[in-house]
Amino acid sequence: MNGELPGYKGLALKLLLEAGAGIGDLIRIVRDDMTLEGVLIPRFEYSDDRHIVIKIRSGYNVGIEVSPSTKVIRLGPEAKPAFVPPPPPEQRPGLPRVSIIGTGGTIASRVDYRTGAVRPVMSASDLYSVIPELAEIAVIDTEILFNIFSEDMTPRHWSAMAEAVARHVRGGVQGVVVAHGTDTMGYSAAALSFALQNLPVPVILVGAQRSGDRPSSDAALNLIGAVLAASRAPFAEVSVAMHETPSDESIVLHRGTRVRKCHTSRRDAFKSINAKPLARIVGDKIIMLTDEYRPRDPNREFTLKPKFDERVALIKHYPGLNPEVIDWYVSRGYRGIVFEGTGLGHVCRELFPAIKRAVESGVVVAMTSQCIWGRVNMNVYSTGRDLLAIGVVPLSDMLAETALVKMMWCLAQTNDPEEVKKLLLTNIAGELSLRTVEYIEPPKTVPGRAPGS
Amino acid sequence: MNGELPGYKGLALKLLLEAGAGIGDLIRIVRDDMTLEGVLIPRFEYSDDRHIVIKIRSGYNVGIEVSPSTKVIRLGPEAKPAFVPPPPPEQRPGLPRVSIIGTGGTIASRVDYRTGAVRPVMSASDLYSVIPELAEIAVIDTEILFNIFSEDMTPRHWSAMAEAVARHVRGGVQGVVVAHGTDTMGYSAAALSFALQNLPVPVILVGAQRSGDRPSSDAALNLIGAVLAASRAPFAEVSVAMHETPSDESIVLHRGTRVRKCHTSRRDAFKSINAKPLARIVGDKIIMLTDEYRPRDPNREFTLKPKFDERVALIKHYPGLNPEVIDWYVSRGYRGIVFEGTGLGHVCRELFPAIKRAVESGVVVAMTSQCIWGRVNMNVYSTGRDLLAIGVVPLSDMLAETALVKMMWCLAQTNDPEEVKKLLLTNIAGELSLRTVEYIEPPKTVPGRAPGS
Repeated sequence: MNGELPGYKGLALKLLLEAGAGIGDLIRIVRDDMTLEGVLIPRFEYSDDRHIVIKIRSGYNVGIEVSPSTKVIRLGPEAKPAFVPPPPPEQRPGLPRVSIIGTGGTIASRVDYRTGAVRPVMSASDLYSVIPELAEIAVIDTEILFNIFSEDMTPRHWSAMAEAVARHVRGGVQGVVVAHGTDTMGYSAAALSFALQNLPVPVILVGAQRSGDRPSSDAALNLIGAVLAASRAPFAEVSVAMHETPSDESIVLHRGTRVRKCHTSRRDAFKSINAKPLARIVGDKIIMLTDEYRPRDPNREFTLKPKFDERVALIKHYPGLNPEVIDWYVSRGYRGIVFEGTGLGHVCRELFPAIKRAVESGVVVAMTSQCIWGRVNMNVYSTGRDLLAIGVVPLSDMLAETALVKMMWCLAQTNDPEEVKKLLLTNIAGELSLRTVEYIEPPKTVPGRAPGS
Repeated sequence: MNGELPGYKGLALKLLLEAGAGIGDLIRIVRDDMTLEGVLIPRFEYSDDRHIVIKIRSGYNVGIEVSPSTKVIRLGPEAKPAFVPPPPPEQRPGLPRVSIIGTGGTIASRVDYRTGAVRPVMSASDLYSVIPELAEIAVIDTEILFNIFSEDMTPRHWSAMAEAVARHVRGGVQGVVVAHGTDTMGYSAAALSFALQNLPVPVILVGAQRSGDRPSSDAALNLIGAVLAASRAPFAEVSVAMHETPSDESIVLHRGTRVRKCHTSRRDAFKSINAKPLARIVGDKIIMLTDEYRPRDPNREFTLKPKFDERVALIKHYPGLNPEVIDWYVSRGYRGIVFEGTGLGHVCRELFPAIKRAVESGVVVAMTSQCIWGRVNMNVYSTGRDLLAIGVVPLSDMLAETALVKMMWCLAQTNDPEEVKKLLLTNIAGELSLRTVEYIEPPKTVPGRAPGS
């Protein structure tokens, strides 16, 4: 333990020592993706060696993840009394503790529409500071995990996000909010749903369709809804909080595995597909819309399974699709293919030989529908039955995007394709309704010619 | 002109002469995909050499397309007086003439749910015979063009379909109905919209979500609606006729470029996206829902442009998408790529180098949104602006499926990528709303580094 730098160790301590910085000094932290200044404060909450916590100008604490390439510069002793840390959250009795993890996106950025430039990072802390209502709801700690557009998210980011959420949950908060770009928020919500199992508290993803500096911004209301849900919702699941309608009347909480961005710009772009939303928030009231949810239980032991295997292709079927793309993915070492088939779960018969080759080489091939609504049923027509005979796994009413994420997750849990198939058809986080799964165990030897064809 | 076989020539005449068949004989026609028996009747309407017309048991005329591999067998002289041809359609005064072209699908098949076997072809003529209401609406001629599931349709089938429709339109009918499987009916509707320009009469695609032998079948009402629209609708466009709601109260007519199958099984699965439907049919009334349509005009000279270039890939973006798949398509000689990007039209920055390589090698790359609703706007965020600078074409509110079809069509019209880009952004068949296209001409030399990145 370092007397001058309480709570710091490892890399974080090294960087601070090299900079000659002490508690209360004004420092600048420079990462590849951002630069932030603030007053160095002691660490209390966790004891990892990868975060430096500063009090930024708005008065709130931000934990910055550091790497060996991060630069820390001491700018001088603390400049203004205004930077004196306010009483720590623990001293505000009665209010639940919530963590906000910033990952980037519109909710965490301000866009200058005249020049087109994205203005410097607006951190989760900044959001907190400009939305005074949040202080009435919870004691909030923030961490800037990334600052990227969500279209740049990869499965590696999902893993880091799951690990960060797990750290905060284990720190004993009543709930976690993840501020996220809306473009791929549905994918990330599904990823966290599979990676964070048996959660004791809610994990709420939240974004904004219009940035905070526009009069029509949905950022404030969405964030208030997310923090309300994190601190008080009766369920302990991963969900997405966004506007329910174009008006500011209500926020809706979608289950993480059932949500899809269905409009490019509307504030109510996110919809629950093939399932009811979990809850609606009107004012400060949370109204549950379903009885089927995992209740909050602070004593529940949760499981972190943050790995994803990226070697999964999502292929949307269309007239003229080249069957050779399937062989190409197999040749590249891919382990899973999720089709967005047509209708009840079909693809062109010209693809069958390539699909058969993929299955025979151990690739798990699963079927969803590009219709989006409804469910795959591959027993109605010969096309579906023949695909089942080849070994294609019918994913019932699972969203294609969720199926992709789940396949990546399943393949990181086991190397046995049969185990993967079973996992795919096991309801883990509300992603499919079990009563309708019509999977027929394929014959052990794939027939030379599909029956019924 | 053959005195014994009036109207027949070329291949059709050859097959009939080889079989020793004459007008009034009972013959069997055997193709790869079906076998049909009926009484040979003279040809009146067209003068191509590829069709044989028989009167089948139900009493209606079917034109069968023949190929060198088709077999014609004379079974004997006409067996029953019941096969005597009824008065030809021309002799029923007052009723419009409509052609029904069968391509397969649920509307043209009966499925045996116990055995799973698809029962022998139910032709468009069969449908006509079991739906007596049709005879009140129009004088109907039918042609069986294909008998395939629509998931097996390829751009080659679109070309054949466009040519068949053109033949019937040029024959002077008041409208054409195309019976089609629902899985890819949206794609085919878009294809016919581009291939059949300046139509004088409506071309109505129709399908069924439940086959005709099920009590809940929508086949009859959809077909009645389609024939009504073909014979009497005031517009001369390609459209899709399906149930508007789950009930039997109304049929809705969607514009061919704006329609998407949005449910796997509901009877109202088809929805107009980013546009109003053209019309609604209640009882025998056609109610227009928009003023923006091309009016029917029997004297209009229409243009047939039936070619499509299949070397176009539709790539849905998702976290973890392998950029190398873009290079693979380019290496395979692909000429166009349509992305289903996220949100306002984004893809992961990791893809930019591969997209740049594709554009530099002359591949036309266009952007749509996987949100489905809303419109691409690539000027809001740096991701979009950088993609525009690379040369990606933003397709506004065009459906991804329609964009794929249009790209295939554009690439068959010209070899000049700049011409293709202009065509893509020209509203040809209501596929995009012009007022919102925000395409910025890319710099002539692609910059080494995208600005703003």
